[in-house]
Amino acid sequence: MGSFPADFASALARDFPPDFATREAGDLVEYGKDWTKVTPPAPSAITFPRTTTDVSRLIALCNAHGVAVVPSGGRTGLAGGALAANGEVVVSMSKMRRMDDVDLLGSAVRVQAGAVTEAVHRHVAAHGLSWPVDFASKGSSQIGGNIATNAGGVKVIRYGLTRTWVLGLQVVLASGEVLELNGALEKNNTGLDLRQLFIGSEGTLGIITEATLKLTRLQQGLRVFLFGVSDLAAVLALFREAKRAPFTISAYEFFTDKCLARLVRHRALRAPLAQPSSHYVLLEAETDGTSDALEAWTTSLFERGLIADGTMAQHGAQAAELWALREGISESLSATGLPHKNDVSLPIAALEAFCAELESVFGARYPGWEICLFGHIGDGNLHINVMKPDMMDKASFLAKTKEADHDLFALVKSHAGSISAEHGIGLLKKPYLGYSRAPEEIALMKAIKRTMDPKGILNPGKVIDD
Amino acid sequence: MGSFPADFASALARDFPPDFATREAGDLVEYGKDWTKVTPPAPSAITFPRTTTDVSRLIALCNAHGVAVVPSGGRTGLAGGALAANGEVVVSMSKMRRMDDVDLLGSAVRVQAGAVTEAVHRHVAAHGLSWPVDFASKGSSQIGGNIATNAGGVKVIRYGLTRTWVLGLQVVLASGEVLELNGALEKNNTGLDLRQLFIGSEGTLGIITEATLKLTRLQQGLRVFLFGVSDLAAVLALFREAKRAPFTISAYEFFTDKCLARLVRHRALRAPLAQPSSHYVLLEAETDGTSDALEAWTTSLFERGLIADGTMAQHGAQAAELWALREGISESLSATGLPHKNDVSLPIAALEAFCAELESVFGARYPGWEICLFGHIGDGNLHINVMKPDMMDKASFLAKTKEADHDLFALVKSHAGSISAEHGIGLLKKPYLGYSRAPEEIALMKAIKRTMDPKGILNPGKVIDD
Repeated sequence: MGSFPADFASALARDFPPDFATREAGDLVEYGKDWTKVTPPAPSAITFPRTTTDVSRLIALCNAHGVAVVPSGGRTGLAGGALAANGEVVVSMSKMRRMDDVDLLGSAVRVQAGAVTEAVHRHVAAHGLSWPVDFASKGSSQIGGNIATNAGGVKVIRYGLTRTWVLGLQVVLASGEVLELNGALEKNNTGLDLRQLFIGSEGTLGIITEATLKLTRLQQGLRVFLFGVSDLAAVLALFREAKRAPFTISAYEFFTDKCLARLVRHRALRAPLAQPSSHYVLLEAETDGTSDALEAWTTSLFERGLIADGTMAQHGAQAAELWALREGISESLSATGLPHKNDVSLPIAALEAFCAELESVFGARYPGWEICLFGHIGDGNLHINVMKPDMMDKASFLAKTKEADHDLFALVKSHAGSISAEHGIGLLKKPYLGYSRAPEEIALMKAIKRTMDPKGILNPGKVIDD
Repeated sequence: MGSFPADFASALARDFPPDFATREAGDLVEYGKDWTKVTPPAPSAITFPRTTTDVSRLIALCNAHGVAVVPSGGRTGLAGGALAANGEVVVSMSKMRRMDDVDLLGSAVRVQAGAVTEAVHRHVAAHGLSWPVDFASKGSSQIGGNIATNAGGVKVIRYGLTRTWVLGLQVVLASGEVLELNGALEKNNTGLDLRQLFIGSEGTLGIITEATLKLTRLQQGLRVFLFGVSDLAAVLALFREAKRAPFTISAYEFFTDKCLARLVRHRALRAPLAQPSSHYVLLEAETDGTSDALEAWTTSLFERGLIADGTMAQHGAQAAELWALREGISESLSATGLPHKNDVSLPIAALEAFCAELESVFGARYPGWEICLFGHIGDGNLHINVMKPDMMDKASFLAKTKEADHDLFALVKSHAGSISAEHGIGLLKKPYLGYSRAPEEIALMKAIKRTMDPKGILNPGKVIDD
C-alpha cells in the first residue's frame, strides 16, 4: 500500500523544480493507468524526471521514506503493470525522450526510456536501419516499457522478442544507485548478465532510464499473402511448408472466420477471398525481390490441396490492406461486443490438441460463448477472446470469466504453455501465475525481489506478492 | 576450499551405484581440469550421473555436507571455469548424452547437458536444421557447458550468442531442487526469466541438466571471401560496405599479417593472396545462390580502392581452405611460440582508437613483444595474443603478462569494452573483473549468489569471490 508522508512531500517540493511533480486530479487519473480498465487509478503524485539523475534522486528519496513508486511509460500495457491504484508515486518517463545519433558502424542507438517506439523507428529508418520490435501500439508505447515488458508483436518469428534487441541498459535501483549494464557490447561474458534480469521485470527490480538498442537492416522485398484453409491442422501444415520454402518467414499470423465476420461487419468490408474458409493465414515473406520461385511455391500449395483459396498483395497498398485485416481484429471485437481477452502461448506441437480441448471444454461449460481465436501462431501465441453472449448481462459475464480463466489456464498448463505470452503478469494475471511457474520458481523470484528491493518500493504488488 | 568428509564419502558409496564415483588419480587429473594449464587440478572425486535425479540427489547430499562441487562438461574452457583445484567433487556430465527426437513443427530438440555440440549438429542436420552455435572446439564441448558459458564463436554476427538458441532449461539448484524453466516456449512473459540467470553463470548458480534447443534452417548458398586490406580502418570500412551489400553477413573475421606469417610457417602453406597485406578479412556471405550481384559488389570494392587484393572460394573445398586460415591461427601461434591470450570486445566504433592505443602502449612498455590480433571483428571481438620474445625466459614473460594484462584491461575499460568477450571469467579472469563490471554490479552478483547458494557449494571461487 502506497503512502505519501508529509516530510516526503516537503522534500519533493524542496529538492525538485516546481514542474517536477503534480497532484492535480486529472493528471493522477491520466498517468496512473494503463490500457486495462479493471481497477481505477489512485496515485498520490505524478513525477516527470528529465534525466537519470532526477530519477536516481527521486528513487533514493522514495526509498528513504518507504514511498512506493510505479514506473510509467506509454501506458499501453494490457496487464495493469503500470497501474497506480494505491497511492503510489508515478514516475512518468514522458519527458525523457532524447535519442542520440545513430552509431552506423555499430548499428546501435542510445535513447532515453521515454522515447516513443515509433519515433525510434523513424529516427533509425533514415539510415536504412530498423529496431525490429513492432506492434500495434507503437505510436504510444515507449522504449522503457517495451524493455520492461519484453514486448513481442508481429515480427517475433523473424527477429525474436525485445530482449534480443537491447545491447545496453541504464537502470536505477531501489537504492537510487545507477547501473550501466553492458554498454554497447554484442559480446560480454563477464559474470551474470544482469541486464537480462531487468528485461521483462515489469518495473519490480529497477527503473530503466536509458537503453542502447541494437539495430538491423530495414527489411526489403516483403511479400504478403492471405490464405484460406480448412482447419487448424491445415494452418500448421502450411506453416511446416513455409518453413521449408525459398524465402524467410517474416510473419505468420492467423485468425478464424469468427474474427473475420466481426471485422467485415465493423468496417463494412468485402470478404478478402472469394471462397470463405474457417481459418485464415497471413504470411509475410522476405524475398530477394524475384517472384518466380514464390509463384511456383504458391501454385504447388493449391495443387497439393494445402490451401483452399489465397491471394498475394500486388503492391504496398494491397499488402497494407491484408495487414489491416489482421491488425483490425482486436478493435473489431471490442466494437461489436464485449470481449474477454487472454494471450497464451503453447509449444507449437501442442497447438492442435490444445485448441480441440479448448473448444470441447468451453462448449460444455460455457455454451453460447463465441471464441474468437487469432494471433502469432508461428510463435505458438494465441490471442483467445471470448465474447459476452447477447443474452447475458455484463456483470454475470465478467464474474463467469474468472471461472473460465481457471479452466483455460488449466488447459494451458496441461500442455506446458504460458498464461501470458507477451502481455506480462502485472496485476491482472497475478492470481494465475502458478499455472505457468512452479512454486520453486515463484519463491526464487520473490527472493531476488527482496534482495534487490528490500523495502519493496518498486512497483509493489505487481507480478508477485511481496 | 573443498572438503570430503568421511560421512559424505560413505553416503556417496551407500546411495549411488559403484561406478557412480571415482577417486582414481588419473581420473582426478583428467576430469578435474579444462584447457587452461595454469593451476593443477586436485579434486576429491569425480561423479558420473546418468539422470537429473542422480544430479539432484548428489547435490542435495553435497549441500547437506557442505561439499563443494564443480560441474564439468567437455572441459574445453579457456578461463578455468571447470577447474577443480581444491578438493571439490566434480560432476561430469559425460554420461548424460541423450538427444530426443527433433520436434520438426516447433524446430526444437531436447537434449541432456552432456550431449556433444557437434553430435547435436549432426542429429538435427539430418532434418535440414541447425543449432547455430559453432566454434572450433565443438567436437569436444558439451551443450551444458555451451549454455553455462553462453558460448560465442564464428556465427555470432549472424545468429547471436548461445543465449538466443535456448528455449528451455532444466536446472538443479544448490538445494537439489529441480527447476524446469520455460519448457519449449518462444514467448512466455510471466515474471522474471530465470533461465537467463543460468545462461553464462559458469555453474555458480545451478547445474544445467537438460535443455530444449531452438533450431533454425541449415544455411545455404554460402560464399566465402578472403580480402587483403591496408589497415584496421580499411577492415572497418569494408565491414560498413558489407552491411549494405546484397547478402546477409554470415561471418566477418579478421587476422593480421603477423598471424598469417606464423600460420604459413607452421603449416607450410603458400600465401593465400598474390599481394601481401597487413590485414586480412574473411567474409562469409549468405546469398540466394546467384553470383551476379555478388561479383558486381566485389568488382566495385576493387574499383573504389576498398580492398588491395581478394579471392572468392569457387567450391566447398576452397571455402574450407579459407576457413582453415582463420581457424588455424590459434594452433599456429602455440606451435611457433608461447602466446599469452586475451579475448576482449569493444564497441565497434571504438575498435580503431583502441587498437592504435594498444600498439602505442605496448610498443612503449613492452618493446619487442609481438602482438597477434585476430577474431570476430564484426562483433567487436578481438583475440589479442602477445608472443613471448625469444630472448625472454618463460617465467619472466608470464610474470610480466600479469602487469601487461592490467595495462590492456585499463585500455579496454577506457573504451567501455569487455575483458572477456566469450571465454568467461572462471578463475583466470577473476582478478580483472572490476575492469568490466562496476562495484555495484559485482555486489549485486554476490547478493544473488548468496540468495541462491547460501552455503556456497556451487563452483566456489569462480567468477566472484564468495
